[in-house]
Amino acid sequence: MKTISGGVTAPLGFKAGGVACGIKKNQQADLALIYSQVPAVAAGIFTTNQVQAAPVILSKEFLKKGKAQAIIANSGNANACVGATGMEAARRMAAAAGKALNIPMDSVLVASTGVIGVALPVERIEKALAEKADFLSDAGSPAAARAIMTTDTFPKEAAVEIELGGAPVRIGGIAKGSGMIHPNMATMLGFITTDAKIEQALLRKAIAAAGDRSFNRITVDGDTSTNDCLLVLANGLAGNKPITSENEDYQTFLQALTGVCLELAKMIARDGEGATKLVEITVRGARTEAEAVQVGKAVAASNLVKTALFGEDANWGRILAAVGYSGVKIDPDRIHIYLGDLSVYQNGTGLVFDEAKAKEILSGKEIRIKIDLGGGAAAASVWTCDLSYDYVKINGSYRS
Amino acid sequence: MKTISGGVTAPLGFKAGGVACGIKKNQQADLALIYSQVPAVAAGIFTTNQVQAAPVILSKEFLKKGKAQAIIANSGNANACVGATGMEAARRMAAAAGKALNIPMDSVLVASTGVIGVALPVERIEKALAEKADFLSDAGSPAAARAIMTTDTFPKEAAVEIELGGAPVRIGGIAKGSGMIHPNMATMLGFITTDAKIEQALLRKAIAAAGDRSFNRITVDGDTSTNDCLLVLANGLAGNKPITSENEDYQTFLQALTGVCLELAKMIARDGEGATKLVEITVRGARTEAEAVQVGKAVAASNLVKTALFGEDANWGRILAAVGYSGVKIDPDRIHIYLGDLSVYQNGTGLVFDEAKAKEILSGKEIRIKIDLGGGAAAASVWTCDLSYDYVKINGSYRS
Repeated sequence: MKTISGGVTAPLGFKAGGVACGIKKNQQADLALIYSQVPAVAAGIFTTNQVQAAPVILSKEFLKKGKAQAIIANSGNANACVGATGMEAARRMAAAAGKALNIPMDSVLVASTGVIGVALPVERIEKALAEKADFLSDAGSPAAARAIMTTDTFPKEAAVEIELGGAPVRIGGIAKGSGMIHPNMATMLGFITTDAKIEQALLRKAIAAAGDRSFNRITVDGDTSTNDCLLVLANGLAGNKPITSENEDYQTFLQALTGVCLELAKMIARDGEGATKLVEITVRGARTEAEAVQVGKAVAASNLVKTALFGEDANWGRILAAVGYSGVKIDPDRIHIYLGDLSVYQNGTGLVFDEAKAKEILSGKEIRIKIDLGGGAAAASVWTCDLSYDYVKINGSYRS
Repeated sequence: MKTISGGVTAPLGFKAGGVACGIKKNQQADLALIYSQVPAVAAGIFTTNQVQAAPVILSKEFLKKGKAQAIIANSGNANACVGATGMEAARRMAAAAGKALNIPMDSVLVASTGVIGVALPVERIEKALAEKADFLSDAGSPAAARAIMTTDTFPKEAAVEIELGGAPVRIGGIAKGSGMIHPNMATMLGFITTDAKIEQALLRKAIAAAGDRSFNRITVDGDTSTNDCLLVLANGLAGNKPITSENEDYQTFLQALTGVCLELAKMIARDGEGATKLVEITVRGARTEAEAVQVGKAVAASNLVKTALFGEDANWGRILAAVGYSGVKIDPDRIHIYLGDLSVYQNGTGLVFDEAKAKEILSGKEIRIKIDLGGGAAAASVWTCDLSYDYVKINGSYRS
């Protein structure tokens, strides 16, 4: 597996782009389009929030046929909780993109992100697509990544190349997300492209597995969004031997797909609203991987742990307390906690440690916390960020 | 039910007090003592965190006999996660208080609150009790309430008087709590006294029911502490006809006990770390009371809702999103949301509302949010506070 550039346009046959259509203020880019020159096998996973935005409902419906050729997404407006007009606006987005690209509207998957409860000015999207359909290009991935940003501070792209039976296959992706991040099936928005040739049932299985080990393992603020979706288009142009069973090629593909998703997911955690640090929490010695994730997420979601990390305070008691209320059965006397490689708690008691060394570890931009539960052989990592003044600032006045 | 003054010393036969013993810096009060002149029937509920502080373990053990005569509590140190020395320190606290009061050590319930993982300097408590045992008085409730504060900004006391069969009966209480508040059986510390005569089994039942409808319905930051406990002493000096069944007197007593607990619980939410507002979230139209509480708590624990309230931003979309991920089955189209008495969301869509009126409601010190699920006849209220810069400030450097 080799890291390459190009994001969603790294795979053969994909174009992308982003423009400002006037939903956001100040001519900021707010409309992204991804297009495959041939119809692609498609799959997706979506938010588990019972309040679901119109584009989520529509994309789920379109995905039933298992194929798609484009993804259109806007930022600045979530097209959620606006009644029946929301579905109409989502359909008009798909239709406008279909018309501009000369493909059926139900080949266009739709996504939106931004403020909830405000009617989407879909006519601006229609106008932009009618006038600027040439904004797609082979080098358009950064523009698309930028056009789906809301409170994100940087665009998020990743791509890798693997070999499947001698044929080079590429997987690329873009994502956005900074707040309302506690995905439960997917994150705010993640779009993956690949030129791999793969059966739809296997693509569906692969994206669910990859999403589960990447986007489903990050949290910024514990709030699961109404708009989460992770979509993948596989157009088969790589010419690899088609993947039709869970053979070695499938495993290689899954590993690479998971790698791209994880790279994007970690970027989201790093870019959490107001975040100053990316925090990796690894839980070992668990009875099952699911329990390791559950413990890790309790620690990752703790406001007290996150504010202590912002303050660079080695307050391991808060980590232990979160482990204790995680819902997983644990024995406090068998737990071992490390900040970086500094051992701070073991055998039921805090250890004497070098506060200067702890401060040095906690002052880094990336912090690793290891928790050994001493109860089994399973392990998992989850990612989060610290909780800063700026999180409060950003979210105290998001609508205005 | 009549509100009276006096806190834990309002009931007959109770004394209390608080002093500085040197655990906290700058001679701040950090040691509280509550004493009944006769042995009292006792009960308590405790944190469900699997990591439990030594005093929690010890008080549970002592409560097995169903009687107690005093409560000793320190602030500034949680006596948690310090290994075997923690139990020894808790026992020494009980023994020192028992000696000073001339009662058996296992008649003294013990509680601690403060930083986790630092050895408790129990010799300072022993010294203070040996030298200052006269700090108890009939008017000592405010001093005791002050001595259990950590990041609290005001002491928390409440008391009521009821009549049981013609005999006046008093119930008083003090509590502390400001951060690490997401009780699951009790809050940080709550101590209730009463001169009611009541069987231990019924007192146990009453305190569990009262705690469930008060302390278990608040959240500050979603973190369940290792030290939560709610203790009650009933010394029987009121001379009421003993409560030995769930008769009318029991119901009256339970209602009053719940009232005192709720008053204290709301003070804790109002005094949440960095809080500028008390927020009451009432959920109606639920299928069961438990589901109403579950929905209310999801909203109450949402960082996005809480920062919007701090910013006085009428962002009802975040409230709806939290309802959607609460885990309770809901239909977004049947939900009706009010800020104060302003209707903001109904029939699956946001309503046009007067932003100035919304601003006026949200600028208050107390904010009421009503959520009608439109699905049943059950209702419940929960309480929380907003999430401000000061929460981050307080928790970014708690240990130092």
